Amino acid sequence: MSRILTGIQSSGRPHLGNILGAILPAIELSKVPGNESFFFIADLHSLTTLKDGALRQEYVRAIAATWLAFGFDTKENVFWRQSRVQQHTELAWYLNCFTPFPMLANATSYKDKSEKLSDVNAGLFTYPVLQAADILLYNAHIIPVGKDQKQHLEMSRDIANRFNLLAGEEILVLPEARIDEKLMTIPGTDGQKMSKSYHNFIDIFLPEKELKKTIKKIISDSTPLEEPKDWSSDITFKLYSLLATESEIQEMKTNYEKGGYGYGHAKQALLECILTKFDEPRRIFNYYMEHPDELEKILIEGEDKAKEVAESTIQKVRKVLGF
Amino acid sequence: MSRILTGIQSSGRPHLGNILGAILPAIELSKVPGNESFFFIADLHSLTTLKDGALRQEYVRAIAATWLAFGFDTKENVFWRQSRVQQHTELAWYLNCFTPFPMLANATSYKDKSEKLSDVNAGLFTYPVLQAADILLYNAHIIPVGKDQKQHLEMSRDIANRFNLLAGEEILVLPEARIDEKLMTIPGTDGQKMSKSYHNFIDIFLPEKELKKTIKKIISDSTPLEEPKDWSSDITFKLYSLLATESEIQEMKTNYEKGGYGYGHAKQALLECILTKFDEPRRIFNYYMEHPDELEKILIEGEDKAKEVAESTIQKVRKVLGF
Repeated sequence: MSRILTGIQSSGRPHLGNILGAILPAIELSKVPGNESFFFIADLHSLTTLKDGALRQEYVRAIAATWLAFGFDTKENVFWRQSRVQQHTELAWYLNCFTPFPMLANATSYKDKSEKLSDVNAGLFTYPVLQAADILLYNAHIIPVGKDQKQHLEMSRDIANRFNLLAGEEILVLPEARIDEKLMTIPGTDGQKMSKSYHNFIDIFLPEKELKKTIKKIISDSTPLEEPKDWSSDITFKLYSLLATESEIQEMKTNYEKGGYGYGHAKQALLECILTKFDEPRRIFNYYMEHPDELEKILIEGEDKAKEVAESTIQKVRKVLGF
Repeated sequence: MSRILTGIQSSGRPHLGNILGAILPAIELSKVPGNESFFFIADLHSLTTLKDGALRQEYVRAIAATWLAFGFDTKENVFWRQSRVQQHTELAWYLNCFTPFPMLANATSYKDKSEKLSDVNAGLFTYPVLQAADILLYNAHIIPVGKDQKQHLEMSRDIANRFNLLAGEEILVLPEARIDEKLMTIPGTDGQKMSKSYHNFIDIFLPEKELKKTIKKIISDSTPLEEPKDWSSDITFKLYSLLATESEIQEMKTNYEKGGYGYGHAKQALLECILTKFDEPRRIFNYYMEHPDELEKILIEGEDKAKEVAESTIQKVRKVLGF
């Protein structure tokens, strides 16, 4: 049996990039027989960049609602808020003491963030240690990560190794990164990688009118309506081709090539495609956003399961360290 | 009413320097009417430098036994092990996100330690943040500290301020450092400040034979037995004058000045003085070291009280941050 662990930071509502790039592949993986999935909302991590408490709560609800909207089976798997399982921060402190300062100082993601952000805090610096705690608490084997997270995973392994060396046995399970090489980058409305920090994301759960507005913002070139267009370089087409059926994609290609088909038409097709394809997820998402008590109940059930696993690991760690 | 908070790291058995410099003054302060004392064993902090679990447990017991040996009233006050109150590490994570990286990087104590130690880990780096959590969890007003800890206290105030600014109200109480200016530095056997890390400490709880051995190691000059000696520069005399009565001190001075009195005699007098003065504490200390279950019971009682206060603070903090 493989135990798979994924966390999504609650620093925004999940957007199309998160859904196609992380959530849907993770849910697929959770359905493979013999797999057991541990999915959590990394709300503690979000504090490194987001200080607004009301926003954090909204984002946590939105992330939880998204997983449910796409059919994640929370009965068969484990689903929880990081902040509700105190063992995360307890283990993070222990692991801090097994993490060489230079390892963190040299982390590429920290260097990137500390150059971009004005609030360079100690949470941002020790972020990979909390992440190691998240993973190691649950004896997770497989961590699906993007390429940019590969270094953090290496750090988790390194920290676990140092601890196991002291313990004289393998108390902490060394996790393996699974990097999905065929996973394409989802373009944002400006053509760059879709990301909350670039403000180029599409929130598929918006009401139709607002969703339309976002889609209208997708950048296109200035080829006149009547002329043929290059679908291969167009952002609207790229997004459409990630969502539509083979024949729909073919139809749009033909429309681009023959001329007389404007970017406005393509954007309308993309909007309709999103509304149709995500009709059920949108309904489920809205249902849970309007029924926070039901969400809360599901999360608390998951938290009870998560605590049990986390407590069993932390007890072994405490024993080794004399706590 | 003033709430006083003191923590002692469990990185060694308490020595004469700790007892005269921290433990006895703290117990005195705890007896002042209107004061309420929160004393804890900082075992989480000890992990930054001590990885051996069995040693940590021994040191924790020894520190607990020392407070009890010197008459700390655990019924009237609060006495606990830091690691048993999970709110410490939880709050430390939150505060990490309110601590600018440069504040930690510029801390004098970190610079000192990172130059001396081979294991420069992230725990050592974020040490002042855990310390801030220790203090702020309990709404402590007064923190008796040595001069070397003044900067850490300033950092606690600074971090609390940043949090309160976000909260829009004073959720975290700003602590005041109390620096006892008249407190003299306790010299070790080599004349430097007595410290575990200099290996120059006197463990007053050792069996008589071993205690004698330690005292024999006190450095003295090579003035021959028959000649007069300079008491003002002698380490044995300095230590004796911290413990003996006025008339005993006077007597030793006279002996030094008249000659025919060797350092061996002075050391024997110091040994006897320690054995007499600390007769009862030595007995109580040994009793608790031989009855760990009784120690455990006292600590658990204290931990219940500590958790209640800590939980009340952490709930306010969680509410502000949306956890």
